[in-house]
Formats: sequence, structure tokens, C-alpha cells
Amino acid sequence: MKVRAKILYAAHTWFNQQDYTEVHGPTFIPATGEWPGYFEVKYFDKKAYLTQGLQPYVDVFVANLGKSYTIAPVFRAEKQRTQRHLTEFWRIEAAAPECDLDEIIRVQEELVTHICHRLSIEAREELMFLRGNVKDMAKMKTPFPRITYDEAIEMLQKDGVRIFWGEELAWDMERKLSLQFDKPFFIKEFPTSFQTFLYKSSVQRQELTLSADLIAPEGYGEISGGGQMINEKKVLLKKMNEEEINPADQHWYMDLRMFDSASQSGFMLGLERLIQWICKLKSIDEASAFPRSLDKFYP
Amino acid sequence: MKVRAKILYAAHTWFNQQDYTEVHGPTFIPATGEWPGYFEVKYFDKKAYLTQGLQPYVDVFVANLGKSYTIAPVFRAEKQRTQRHLTEFWRIEAAAPECDLDEIIRVQEELVTHICHRLSIEAREELMFLRGNVKDMAKMKTPFPRITYDEAIEMLQKDGVRIFWGEELAWDMERKLSLQFDKPFFIKEFPTSFQTFLYKSSVQRQELTLSADLIAPEGYGEISGGGQMINEKKVLLKKMNEEEINPADQHWYMDLRMFDSASQSGFMLGLERLIQWICKLKSIDEASAFPRSLDKFYP
Repeated sequence: MKVRAKILYAAHTWFNQQDYTEVHGPTFIPATGEWPGYFEVKYFDKKAYLTQGLQPYVDVFVANLGKSYTIAPVFRAEKQRTQRHLTEFWRIEAAAPECDLDEIIRVQEELVTHICHRLSIEAREELMFLRGNVKDMAKMKTPFPRITYDEAIEMLQKDGVRIFWGEELAWDMERKLSLQFDKPFFIKEFPTSFQTFLYKSSVQRQELTLSADLIAPEGYGEISGGGQMINEKKVLLKKMNEEEINPADQHWYMDLRMFDSASQSGFMLGLERLIQWICKLKSIDEASAFPRSLDKFYP
Repeated sequence: MKVRAKILYAAHTWFNQQDYTEVHGPTFIPATGEWPGYFEVKYFDKKAYLTQGLQPYVDVFVANLGKSYTIAPVFRAEKQRTQRHLTEFWRIEAAAPECDLDEIIRVQEELVTHICHRLSIEAREELMFLRGNVKDMAKMKTPFPRITYDEAIEMLQKDGVRIFWGEELAWDMERKLSLQFDKPFFIKEFPTSFQTFLYKSSVQRQELTLSADLIAPEGYGEISGGGQMINEKKVLLKKMNEEEINPADQHWYMDLRMFDSASQSGFMLGLERLIQWICKLKSIDEASAFPRSLDKFYP
């Protein structure tokens, strides 16, 4: 919990130094269309749902305030994945206007590097206890390695993993890759086939999205994901059509794109995942004082 | 939203300078006993409720980490009061061990003063627009006036208000009092009759609790409330008995007091209320980008 607090303050400090504005999206959200995993709340005589993140509200903040970030709890009710996932966790989300994939990758690596450096000074005792040394945190530096999804598939196939291009990287595959790195690294340009429709496609290769995941080394898996958002209404409508999402169910979101919107990129970093890697915790549960999961919401 | 962000960063900075540890309590909480106004969530095949604040979890943090604070969303489903209240709002909560009522009053006035000073420098343009000047914020200084509940009743009665000792101060009464002050002030030592059972009683006058509300001037009403918590199991059991609360329904909380607990005080400051006063907003809705109330949870 001490390391957690130091991470939070390092993040707040860094974002403010970089002229990001802290914002808060709503927790109660209306109908969620086709997306699964939402918790349902009895909202007087209606139903509300609990947020899964700052999307799509972040668009409003970025359009009005420019670079924006939030640190807030999000909620996921996915039954099948809650062994490795908390139902309630905190997320660091940020977005910036006039920002492409390469730039938002740099934002993430600079933020994480800043956090590592601050911890090496301010949480020295805790890191010595948890990691056995503070050198790796003190020596963290940008740039983090970047590999493409194409390269990730090749690396896995060479390693004897049975995976084909176009398939999603499973948890244990990311883990396998991450054992080959001694610092966080990015996997970028995932196929559109398994990415949310929010990300822009590559101009050169339409089958790829301008997205990237940040993976922790040493087998700890994904800690952040992000990319460049679709800002043109025409493109969004086409993607929604492909995904069989009815724009009428998303009319507030469509209104935000009525005249297209600012080109922007953003990311979502899981606070507990970052803590798990930095503190070398066996279970994500240990990153939270009162963890919530499928079977556990007490005390 | 710009002022909101500056307030948040000023608060984070101040707490960290004062060696408070940032903590996060759970949002999903189990059965809530007798307390009203909780939102109910479908938690897989069970029911969970949404938090109304860091109590009682704050006790665990204070016992382990010492001075602790949180900035997090809380939820209230009170139907009759939601005209002036949001159903979802953010709260700055803090607690400190070995801290009495006078000290926790000082913590609040120092925090608010720090925030006012930072805003007078960093949100100059916004304050000029919203308040017409920045002098009052720049000149804010401790100590804030303190009146007792006894004195508040006398002041109101002299003013022709029909209120008797022992009755709760209604919203419009607090408003009336607050028009007589040009800076925030505390009303302290409320009768036990309408206070939660969590606060300690005065040694000299058992009918009073060691609690205080921070009221904004200029008619903006309460922005914070707090006091010295009951730390002895025996006293807590006696109070629960008086309030007809069954300790068996609160057994995790009772366990925290099994061997009594550290003497501690804490407070809960409503972020949107603070913003409403500082920005002179007509409605609490304007303090939030996506306000949620009885009839409104869209977009």
C-alpha cells in the first residue's frame, strides 16, 4: 500500500508537470449497447451500469481541456476471467489531442519510467524488501523495446507456440514473450479482428489498428493498452457496420463525432497490474487492500 | 473543470507534504445493516452495495499506515434529498491516528487554505471570471471561526428562526448562518441525537459528540464533516445498543475494535461542494462534467 501511494503521487505529479488536466468521468452510465461485462445497478426505478473506463467521455474532456487524465475505479463483471482479474480496480487513463500512436507510446514509457525513478528514491526500503534491489527501477530508461504483432507471432511460433496470424495473444503467450525482456516493452499494431472498433486502422495496412499494449517483463503480462482513436464519423460508421453495432444505440457517442473530432490518442493503465509487476506480487489481489473478485466482496 | 483539477492537485500535493498516504477503499461493499441510501448492484448471483465512504475501512489504513487520505467517488441513493445532492460525487477523506477534534479541525482549515492559495496563483484567470476577484482566495488564512452547536442555535433563535436545542440544522439554517461569515467556519459539538454513532462523546457533556462541520460562507452550506471516532469497543457497543443497531450485523467492524483501536479523527470533504463555493456555482450539477442525480444519468 505504501508503494501504491508512491506510484499514485508520482503519476499525479508527472501528469501535472506535463500539463495534463485531471478529470473524472461518471461511474453510473446508461445503456451499454452490445458490450459485455457491465455491472447493473438499481437506479431508483431505472437501471444504470458501472463504468468500464473514461471512453467515450474522454473525447469531451480532450476537446475542451486538451491533454487529460483520470485515476479512478472501473468495474468488470466478466465471470470467466475473474481468476486473474479484479471486478473492481483502479485505472490511470490519459488522452491527448493531435497525438499519434508513436507519441502515446512515448507518453506511457515516460510515465512508467518517471514512476520507477521516484520509487527507487521514495520507496527504497519497500522495493529492497519486495524486489531485493532498487537498481533496476533506478536504471529504467526510455525508449522501451517495441515489437509489432507480426513479430510477436513469429517469436511465439519459433518458440513452438501454436498460434496463427490474426489470433489474439492469450495471457500465457504474453507471459512467454515477456520472459524474453528485462524491461517493459510494447506490442503494437494488432489486427482489427480482435481489437475494439475504437482504434484507427493503419493507412499502409488496413487490417492493422494503430494500437499498442505495454507488457511488463518477467512474466507479469499486460499493464497498459492504448492507441489512436477513430476521429472521422464516416470511418466510425463503417467500422460499426462491420461489427454489427447499431449507431442508433450509441447516439450520444455518434453526436460527439457529428463533425468528426480532434485526432487523438489515449491509453488505459491498470494500477494494480503495474503494482503487481513492480512489487513482484504473486496475485493481483495483493495489489489492493480490499480486493474484489468473483467470489469475494467481503469485508 | 480547470478549477476542479487545480483543487485536486493542490490536495494531493498538500497531503503528500504532510506525510499522508493515499489509499483506496472498496467501492463494492457487503450488507449495509441499517443504513439507508445505498445503491444495490447485481454482483453475479449475490447483491453488493456501492460505498458511501471510507468508513469503516479507514480504520485499517490508519492502524497500518498512519495518516491516510483518499480521493474517490461515493454514492448515495437518497431520493428525497437529490435535488440538492448528486447521487455520485467525489470525496476527499482523511484520517489521522492520535488526533483529537481540535487537530482534525486544523487539518481541514489548513488543507482548504492551501487549496485557496494555490488557486489564487494557478487558476487566476478562472477565478477572475467566476468570482470577480482572486484577493479573497489569496488572503484566506487560518484559523477559521469556530462556533459551537449551542451558539449556532442561539444565533438562529436571535434571528427569529424557530429551532430548539437538539434539532438538526436544516440546509436553509446552515445557509442563514453562513451568510454571517465571509470565510469558511466550523460548527462543532453537535448533539448525539442526530449524529452517527461513530463519533465519541464529549467527556464534560455526554450529550455532545466530538464532531464538527465545515461550512462555506456566502450561503453555500456544508463542505466537510468530521470528528473524533469512538475507539473503545465498550463505548461502541453501548452506542449501538442505544441506536438499536445489532453488532452481529457489523461483525467485521466490531472485529476492528476487538482490542479497542487507535484514537483517531477523520473528515469527509465533498469535492463538488467545495467547487460550488469556490466557483460560486448556482447548482452542484455544474461542479461535475457528467452530473448524476435522481432523474439524470445520461449521457
